[in-house]
Amino acid sequence: MADVVLGEISERLGGELIGDAATRISAIGPLESATPATIAFLANPKYARHLASSRAGCVIVAPAFREAALARGAAIVTPDPYLYFAHLTQWWAERTRPARVAGVHATARIDATADVAADATIGPFAVIESGASIGAGASVGAHGFVGRDCRVGAGTRLAPRVTLLFETTLGERCIVHPGAVLGSDGFGFAPDRGHWEKIEQLGRVRVGDDVEIGANSCIDRGAAGDTVIGDGVKIDNLVQIGHNVQIGAHTAIAGCVGIAGSSTSGAHCMIGGGAGVSGHVKIADYVVVGGATQITRSIVKAGFYSGSFPFDDNASWEKNAATLRNLHALRERVKALEKKTP
Amino acid sequence: MADVVLGEISERLGGELIGDAATRISAIGPLESATPATIAFLANPKYARHLASSRAGCVIVAPAFREAALARGAAIVTPDPYLYFAHLTQWWAERTRPARVAGVHATARIDATADVAADATIGPFAVIESGASIGAGASVGAHGFVGRDCRVGAGTRLAPRVTLLFETTLGERCIVHPGAVLGSDGFGFAPDRGHWEKIEQLGRVRVGDDVEIGANSCIDRGAAGDTVIGDGVKIDNLVQIGHNVQIGAHTAIAGCVGIAGSSTSGAHCMIGGGAGVSGHVKIADYVVVGGATQITRSIVKAGFYSGSFPFDDNASWEKNAATLRNLHALRERVKALEKKTP
Amino acid sequence: MADVVLGEISERLGGELIGDAATRISAIGPLESATPATIAFLANPKYARHLASSRAGCVIVAPAFREAALARGAAIVTPDPYLYFAHLTQWWAERTRPARVAGVHATARIDATADVAADATIGPFAVIESGASIGAGASVGAHGFVGRDCRVGAGTRLAPRVTLLFETTLGERCIVHPGAVLGSDGFGFAPDRGHWEKIEQLGRVRVGDDVEIGANSCIDRGAAGDTVIGDGVKIDNLVQIGHNVQIGAHTAIAGCVGIAGSSTSGAHCMIGGGAGVSGHVKIADYVVVGGATQITRSIVKAGFYSGSFPFDDNASWEKNAATLRNLHALRERVKALEKKTP
Repeated sequence: MADVVLGEISERLGGELIGDAATRISAIGPLESATPATIAFLANPKYARHLASSRAGCVIVAPAFREAALARGAAIVTPDPYLYFAHLTQWWAERTRPARVAGVHATARIDATADVAADATIGPFAVIESGASIGAGASVGAHGFVGRDCRVGAGTRLAPRVTLLFETTLGERCIVHPGAVLGSDGFGFAPDRGHWEKIEQLGRVRVGDDVEIGANSCIDRGAAGDTVIGDGVKIDNLVQIGHNVQIGAHTAIAGCVGIAGSSTSGAHCMIGGGAGVSGHVKIADYVVVGGATQITRSIVKAGFYSGSFPFDDNASWEKNAATLRNLHALRERVKALEKKTP
Repeated sequence: MADVVLGEISERLGGELIGDAATRISAIGPLESATPATIAFLANPKYARHLASSRAGCVIVAPAFREAALARGAAIVTPDPYLYFAHLTQWWAERTRPARVAGVHATARIDATADVAADATIGPFAVIESGASIGAGASVGAHGFVGRDCRVGAGTRLAPRVTLLFETTLGERCIVHPGAVLGSDGFGFAPDRGHWEKIEQLGRVRVGDDVEIGANSCIDRGAAGDTVIGDGVKIDNLVQIGHNVQIGAHTAIAGCVGIAGSSTSGAHCMIGGGAGVSGHVKIADYVVVGGATQITRSIVKAGFYSGSFPFDDNASWEKNAATLRNLHALRERVKALEKKTP
Repeated sequence: MADVVLGEISERLGGELIGDAATRISAIGPLESATPATIAFLANPKYARHLASSRAGCVIVAPAFREAALARGAAIVTPDPYLYFAHLTQWWAERTRPARVAGVHATARIDATADVAADATIGPFAVIESGASIGAGASVGAHGFVGRDCRVGAGTRLAPRVTLLFETTLGERCIVHPGAVLGSDGFGFAPDRGHWEKIEQLGRVRVGDDVEIGANSCIDRGAAGDTVIGDGVKIDNLVQIGHNVQIGAHTAIAGCVGIAGSSTSGAHCMIGGGAGVSGHVKIADYVVVGGATQITRSIVKAGFYSGSFPFDDNASWEKNAATLRNLHALRERVKALEKKTP
């Protein structure tokens, strides 16, 4: 019942359709496993080898692959197939998923002073505390917690089990996935004769518009001053953002990244999975950080930075790692040899 | 009151009991801290030095340690002491923990179209959405969320606060620990003139039988096509599994591992704590990955692979790390020396 | 309305106030962005350059910075400005945040056999199981789960959505942040002809007094014997503590750290963000572990240990990493050269 015909797709999303507009499409999928009822796409030329043999009913391609695509069947030609694919998935989701139903579930507990838009959706067992506001068309999922004086902007969707602690603000059209925690205390303690004295975290978390935050990720409130996530930032699952961090607009942060307190990322950065950023580091705009790379000092220039240990079979790794522990001495030996060698 | 006598243990679990069958046992514990009421085991010969001095009332050992064990007291001799220990803990848990009570808690919210087995257990404040099914003898813990059209197989246990987003399926006899999230959106965006356009994640998460998933771990739904976790897979806490990942049967993944999108692990692999797997990587069957190792390209052959930086005192590390940043230049210097040296 | 005058601060917290005691203060903040209504502090001499230009209404400084501070306006002079700042934040939070209100929310489900102190606070939709006890002045947040026979000490605060599985005990004055899971099963399985046999985790989690545990962190119960967190330990977000780990008193563990099963950390240690500790490792007292460092063997001596790969621009990293994969061979070449060079 989710079927469409190719003509509907190109009518809706544009592109040049070459082939039978009446071809039925029931799924979007990868080239390799496509069936005649699948629409697939070729975005990365690296995968062009899959084109000829794909059984896809239609392939979305860039002009450069026009001939190759047609040699095998129908195609939609468009300058940016990956973006076309993104729009297609959005339309598909809209068509096939149940529409949001406005209203407050009978079991939700909403403080009398909270301001919930009439067309917002509040799920079962959600808790909305005093002074909080939920914008037009926004939704709070089951078991959601929106603390005192939080603000959830229009059209923002909190999945089930999202926790916003007091005074956290989220802009419009954000998506927050299950288990994410915004506004928990930053990790701040002053040493005092062998024990740690808590530094109460007096700042907030402020999140811009069109931000996505992954499952079980954490964004701590600022110590004094706020933690700030810019517009259009995308954060994957299990990411830790420390207190007073600032993330510039449209930066994407992959899974399992940790960004320590008071660090600043520029705009339009991409931080690879498992990477870490030390505290009080500044990263310029348009920086790409490779996976599992530890950024231990500031980066002042756009570019691609990496730093993970190359893996190997365990025996080779052991030998190399042991040598590495004496690397400085090895360098001194080379120096000594150089002195002796005319 | 949890006491048993040795005779009951060997009667129930087998093995050759040598010693007084009437000895009372009140705890299972490690050799080093055992008391005369403790049953301990020796699985790793590395710990054999603890045998002679252990005060354990009984020690489970392999035939090779028969004499050593008897020299100090009662023993159960069995070919695989670690497996025996596993069976013993299972029996112990069954004996000492309250039995599951079937039934739906009064506060749970179950959609009228959901199919909940008569003998399933649904905890307080659980939410079960339309079209979901909960199999025979399965349980959903307190604050559990089982989204639209999810399937939870017979005998599967969801701890408190587990979130299954729509269309997620779990096989039989699985265990999912608190805070785990299955079916959240994969991290997919197409760049469009400086902002990110969301790729709706249209696939699902499909989990096999006898799978265990740790606390606060995340498994993303597929972009198009599904994320698939094979039978018997064991996943520890705080593990991130990206969209369209496939994990082969009986693979074990330790804590804090991240596996990026579209990667494939073979069957019977072991992935060490804190390791990472880059996107679109294929790992063969029977691969062991060391802790904190980054797998950045495919592994086609079974074996043990490692790749973490050896730690050292900070001063040595600083010198070695600084030299490492010029390692390629050092190699060139060695090359030059080799040319000059006949 | 949160305003105070400087005189109130020094009266309350001590220190030598030099300047107009009637100066109004409305915020605590960093030197750089301070306004005349801000009180700031200088703890790290590295930031002394910000002192002269700061517009702060008052600066908390050590005696060494007395003159520099006064050259620009009011100051509070105290031997430990960072500790003073900590106390100031505590007082500020107490003054400006709503006081805890004792009582059980109407929607909470508390087993009849649980023992909840009369002045404890139990939030909406919290679940407290049989035999659990909640101490005087303690609080369980919204959606909290306190399992069978857990103990929550006096004055301990569980944020919303904290999960304590059965038999977990927490001392007094602890703080647990949202999403933390204590008492989930440790990761233990015995291999049996290609599949994994579960080792039921029969121990518990025992947490001392004055412990703080971050958002979405996990502490597994012991296999046999307990996982033990000492007094005054501070654990950041997304930290994984395996079964039977023991953490000595007053140790601080930063975000995204993983500590594998049966490892032991001494007292007064500091473990940097993203670090990992392998299983069965012992770490002495007063050890500092750098960020992203993998501790793969025991550390017997206090000191600062590091081990992360230095990052670089991607091209340099690729060359160095490739050379590193042949590092042992390079060393052999240096050896050969040394033999040849008199």
